[in-house]
Amino acid sequence: MPIVHITRRERFSAAHRLRREDWSEERNAEVFGKCANPNWHGHNYELWVTVKGEQRPETSFVVDLSELSRIIKERVIQHVDHKNLDLDVAFMKGRYSSTENLAIAIWEQLAEPIAALGCSLHGVKVQETENNYVEYHGA
Amino acid sequence: MPIVHITRRERFSAAHRLRREDWSEERNAEVFGKCANPNWHGHNYELWVTVKGEQRPETSFVVDLSELSRIIKERVIQHVDHKNLDLDVAFMKGRYSSTENLAIAIWEQLAEPIAALGCSLHGVKVQETENNYVEYHGA
Amino acid sequence: MPIVHITRRERFSAAHRLRREDWSEERNAEVFGKCANPNWHGHNYELWVTVKGEQRPETSFVVDLSELSRIIKERVIQHVDHKNLDLDVAFMKGRYSSTENLAIAIWEQLAEPIAALGCSLHGVKVQETENNYVEYHGA
Amino acid sequence: MPIVHITRRERFSAAHRLRREDWSEERNAEVFGKCANPNWHGHNYELWVTVKGEQRPETSFVVDLSELSRIIKERVIQHVDHKNLDLDVAFMKGRYSSTENLAIAIWEQLAEPIAALGCSLHGVKVQETENNYVEYHGA
Amino acid sequence: MPIVHITRRERFSAAHRLRREDWSEERNAEVFGKCANPNWHGHNYELWVTVKGEQRPETSFVVDLSELSRIIKERVIQHVDHKNLDLDVAFMKGRYSSTENLAIAIWEQLAEPIAALGCSLHGVKVQETENNYVEYHGA
Amino acid sequence: MPIVHITRRERFSAAHRLRREDWSEERNAEVFGKCANPNWHGHNYELWVTVKGEQRPETSFVVDLSELSRIIKERVIQHVDHKNLDLDVAFMKGRYSSTENLAIAIWEQLAEPIAALGCSLHGVKVQETENNYVEYHGA
Repeated sequence: MPIVHITRRERFSAAHRLRREDWSEERNAEVFGKCANPNWHGHNYELWVTVKGEQRPETSFVVDLSELSRIIKERVIQHVDHKNLDLDVAFMKGRYSSTENLAIAIWEQLAEPIAALGCSLHGVKVQETENNYVEYHGA
Repeated sequence: MPIVHITRRERFSAAHRLRREDWSEERNAEVFGKCANPNWHGHNYELWVTVKGEQRPETSFVVDLSELSRIIKERVIQHVDHKNLDLDVAFMKGRYSSTENLAIAIWEQLAEPIAALGCSLHGVKVQETENNYVEYHGA
Repeated sequence: MPIVHITRRERFSAAHRLRREDWSEERNAEVFGKCANPNWHGHNYELWVTVKGEQRPETSFVVDLSELSRIIKERVIQHVDHKNLDLDVAFMKGRYSSTENLAIAIWEQLAEPIAALGCSLHGVKVQETENNYVEYHGA
Repeated sequence: MPIVHITRRERFSAAHRLRREDWSEERNAEVFGKCANPNWHGHNYELWVTVKGEQRPETSFVVDLSELSRIIKERVIQHVDHKNLDLDVAFMKGRYSSTENLAIAIWEQLAEPIAALGCSLHGVKVQETENNYVEYHGA
Repeated sequence: MPIVHITRRERFSAAHRLRREDWSEERNAEVFGKCANPNWHGHNYELWVTVKGEQRPETSFVVDLSELSRIIKERVIQHVDHKNLDLDVAFMKGRYSSTENLAIAIWEQLAEPIAALGCSLHGVKVQETENNYVEYHGA
Repeated sequence: MPIVHITRRERFSAAHRLRREDWSEERNAEVFGKCANPNWHGHNYELWVTVKGEQRPETSFVVDLSELSRIIKERVIQHVDHKNLDLDVAFMKGRYSSTENLAIAIWEQLAEPIAALGCSLHGVKVQETENNYVEYHGA
């Protein structure tokens, strides 16, 4: 059976900042620039989740997109949308809220429930602004 | 010689529905949701066709984009644009018009004429809405 | 108090065709071109609804966007999304499903409930493809 | 001399929230929904500034776009980009950070310096997400 | 009869520069910046043409979009697409190729043939980059 | 350590043409079509540069995006933005300015300085119009 990839986009709006508490204000500003602003800033994040697998004979779907969307919302969006990534999100605890860490954490939230659907998570893409995005394909 | 990938986008607008004639109305609604509406719905589909190959010495092109566009139009677009994917399209006969099946059928339409140009079809991406798309890279 | 305009986008996917039953097949093809395909075609429509008014002192909002979104969904989207504009939509009965008529019909669906919110409908924009859209601002 | 409109887009990423300190938690949640989250959320805002005027004979420009961009950056972007709209922005003091108030405050920042260029500010458009934006054309 | 606006987008790719032959190199660089490069630069221009009028009873169209598209192509696109705006375009002769002048010249090319269709040209919008565009609505 | 991909977009506007001096006018027109116009045409090019690597423990970044942006600007953008790709760009000397050659040349400009940052260049994507782009991943 041929392997097909299918991608679902979801969106969330969140606050965050990049700063290390064990660094001086100067060091934070030097390394993280304007992202270190103590009073936070924020983004409209776009999230693309790509799943791969064989088609199910009954429907010709790799995955039911409404099931996939429900999982992404339950495991990711409701935890991060209109939240503070550094204060409000259990799955980001202990990690700086870089786009890299966010993509990895989202992968960890999604890999297992997507496998339980009979297909597999292929990639997570997190776009922070129109000029930069991160992709993660698992360890 | 280095391998380069080049992608051409084309667009088409089509009607379709997702329903199995051998299922009850209830079963169709349960599995296919609003996509099962008997009177059809439709989309503006976007199609990206990615070709890979070496550069031709005379032009430095992997493929002449106007040739590639002509092939996509002759083999795909003129068959599906302003058509009903379930009633009007010979290359979709016997398949549900899921985006998965559409991507595979478009691959089958394009692989041979693109190979005849001296390069090879790398991938077909079909975007159904701004929130979902399917990619197929061959069996 | 200053007047402010606020716009909400919603989307729907629908099938339709442009043909007059009182015309011959040839006349339909001549005037409506590929839009006259008897087996329908379809689009991802984008709808922008612009409301104007003074700000409410309690919230500084012209309108609560979730209220506006609810009205658009109840009065428009649930009637047209994943539907056939010519067969399934009560508010399109007796009109060809041109984008012009669709914009006017959507205006008629929205003007009164938006006025009931204490602001006024300023404009309706319906985008059929990336290359064309219609705007209507009332009679 | 004919009147021409010219528009410049700039972008900024900021944190904010919508809540009234004189309201209960319940009342804030009821009116402002998820926007009331005490730990903030944020957006990638897009700002379109439209200027109108006659063309300058020497250049045929209504306005030098690099001058216009410089004014928008000095008067708006550097105050809001990677900032908290409710804590860090002098020109938002005493106003809820609704998109309506933001558009009006940006208008007030820009009207005078643009008039000093010999043209006039026609409109300010602030887009908060892909689904909603506010326009303001002055009192 | 209600007035409806309908907009058609077309695209063209062209080279141009901004420099006055009666100015020194220094003065050109000072006023026109990098746009003064003697060897030209170029853009993918997007053109939106907005027409307004009453609906035609036979079709409910304000204008047949394929007729409108044909006029835009014949009067504008074929003259500017893959051309040099300063060397190749008769309707730009004697004008600097600023976006302001381009929008006015395109208006002049289109107003009459659109009036001959029984509707009227409402506006021309020319987008030069994702960050700036010009609109012209006639003298 | 997991491998993460991060992508930065930059933009440039340039003039170019596709023609061989050793071919007749007829042959150039036949092969390169309207791209052969002797007086040039131009595009708004979009450039996506994808870098891959492990995360740096101090910041959790694969690469500091402002460093990456600086390298892309110094090595590519300042050489091509508002320039003529065929006349002004040292790194394009001796190559036709096809999108294929442009992507390869940009790869050659970027591979070494990105390796010096401790990560590696994964891919270069150059988009010439909304309908076509080229990707290059190295020899």
